[in-house]
Amino acid sequence: MGIGRARAVLTADEIFDLVREDLRGVEIAIGVESAASVPAVTTPISKYLERDGEKRLRAALLLLCSRFAGGGNSRMAIQLGAVVEMIHAATLVHDEMIDGAQTRCAWPSDDIHFANRTCVLAGDWLYIRAFRVALQERVLDVVLGAAQTMVAAELIQLDRIGRIGIAESDCLDLADRKTACLFSICGKLGAVAGGVDPRDGEKLAEFAWNLGMAFQLIDDVLAFSRDLEDGKVTLPLVYALQPASGSERDLVESVLRDRGYAAVPFASVLALVDRYGGICRTRARAREFSDRALQILAELPDSVCRRALFTLTDLVTERDC
Amino acid sequence: MGIGRARAVLTADEIFDLVREDLRGVEIAIGVESAASVPAVTTPISKYLERDGEKRLRAALLLLCSRFAGGGNSRMAIQLGAVVEMIHAATLVHDEMIDGAQTRCAWPSDDIHFANRTCVLAGDWLYIRAFRVALQERVLDVVLGAAQTMVAAELIQLDRIGRIGIAESDCLDLADRKTACLFSICGKLGAVAGGVDPRDGEKLAEFAWNLGMAFQLIDDVLAFSRDLEDGKVTLPLVYALQPASGSERDLVESVLRDRGYAAVPFASVLALVDRYGGICRTRARAREFSDRALQILAELPDSVCRRALFTLTDLVTERDC
Repeated sequence: MGIGRARAVLTADEIFDLVREDLRGVEIAIGVESAASVPAVTTPISKYLERDGEKRLRAALLLLCSRFAGGGNSRMAIQLGAVVEMIHAATLVHDEMIDGAQTRCAWPSDDIHFANRTCVLAGDWLYIRAFRVALQERVLDVVLGAAQTMVAAELIQLDRIGRIGIAESDCLDLADRKTACLFSICGKLGAVAGGVDPRDGEKLAEFAWNLGMAFQLIDDVLAFSRDLEDGKVTLPLVYALQPASGSERDLVESVLRDRGYAAVPFASVLALVDRYGGICRTRARAREFSDRALQILAELPDSVCRRALFTLTDLVTERDC
Repeated sequence: MGIGRARAVLTADEIFDLVREDLRGVEIAIGVESAASVPAVTTPISKYLERDGEKRLRAALLLLCSRFAGGGNSRMAIQLGAVVEMIHAATLVHDEMIDGAQTRCAWPSDDIHFANRTCVLAGDWLYIRAFRVALQERVLDVVLGAAQTMVAAELIQLDRIGRIGIAESDCLDLADRKTACLFSICGKLGAVAGGVDPRDGEKLAEFAWNLGMAFQLIDDVLAFSRDLEDGKVTLPLVYALQPASGSERDLVESVLRDRGYAAVPFASVLALVDRYGGICRTRARAREFSDRALQILAELPDSVCRRALFTLTDLVTERDC
């Protein structure tokens, strides 16, 4: 049982109620700031912004941190919420490049090339517009630093594709760069907009960083099958491979080489990961980060926003989609 | 004969001699500013920066404008030279996405997908690093504006692919957004680094904008065949299609539809463009912009740098590759 278990918590709805109006403000700001005067620009970009699987989690985190930190400048918090969501969307859009080999049957190849070129430019647009807002709010240095870290993470991940010799520390380093870094910025910027003194701001950034690490490790659990198919060795497999035999390693290498489960069914890999507790160990590692996040919160003064941040941490760690 | 014909000019070598040392500084700055601590990041990016067909034209323009404007802050001019070249490289890298359909025979599709994903991230990295330098030099607002305009230009161009109903004004608007805008920034930033008063800075920006327009129209002449194959209708064809007959338009539409010269040979399209003087008229339109550039220069005080800018304008307009 984690450190956060004994607290009075809120439901997910109650959390979002706290920042619902500000989140609506973020949606409006995203619309305004990503808009262009030319339909050829606006149309492809709005398509990418409408999808929202994660319910603006980063903006909600930033807004809650801002409220917790005093809620001094809610206009700024809303603008910065839009910034982090646009940056996040830009990375997703650039990650969405379609692999012609995998969809060749369904799509005409001209359409794939066109869709990929649009992806790249739509992502560029979102980055640039987000940077302009961050420049206006005088926080661009921090935001550029995070964007750079995330791009480096993707390049490192690409470089590791198909490689089996990945260590736990490699996975944690990648989780830091690709996810926790932007979460940490949400804590930091929330604190700036809220008007808290810098030391408490550092605490919020540290809380948010740990939350981001937990989020990414749970993501590694949930996306495990697809990651392996994409040639990515993530933490559940790293843990499973540590005590695995030579023939078990061959099994995994075969999936990485084939980029699919034609020769070795996914069930066999899952059985291997189960045998050595790869999923359980990854969940436990995620729990260590979320416990640390809860511990940092526990040292801060109580308020309804702090209770919301407690609940958000539990929701992130216990989610199953 | 253009307005610039009666002047004492320099050779191309003499121009580059003027800024050779600063251009070396720009090369070093590009290396330093685009570097990363992780080889997985540095390796793919340096590959893109080594190719340099245009001999750092934008940096040379910025450095010459800075010298012309007094050469007050040559360290800043070098840093800004690196910024404009990194932005230019980023747009080229993002434009280099490989069309799987066209290279399928030669490349394994996995390699194409990998190369395209690397392209996207390398371009992102270059943009972000360039923005960080521009932020340090306090000119990021101007640089973000130009980057945004260039990305919008690419989206507009993509939207027009395969369409025949393009007007002269559409082509000029695109030349402004995709090329002249960044040239203009080179004039403006050169003036800022040089330490000139803002009014003369505006003149240099206007000169550079006209140079950029001439540069892009000459580019449209030189890249005419490839552009048409890519489905892009540029100025030479727009001029030729104005008086063309219905069957002649069908010819061009057929090339646009097929994305190639299988049914209609390139010679037939070229004959059509020749018949109606599409190339000559585009060159003449480019000459109008370069004449305007020379005229603006002629109103500024004489110096060796002004003579270099005269020559640069002639070189851009008369180039054949």
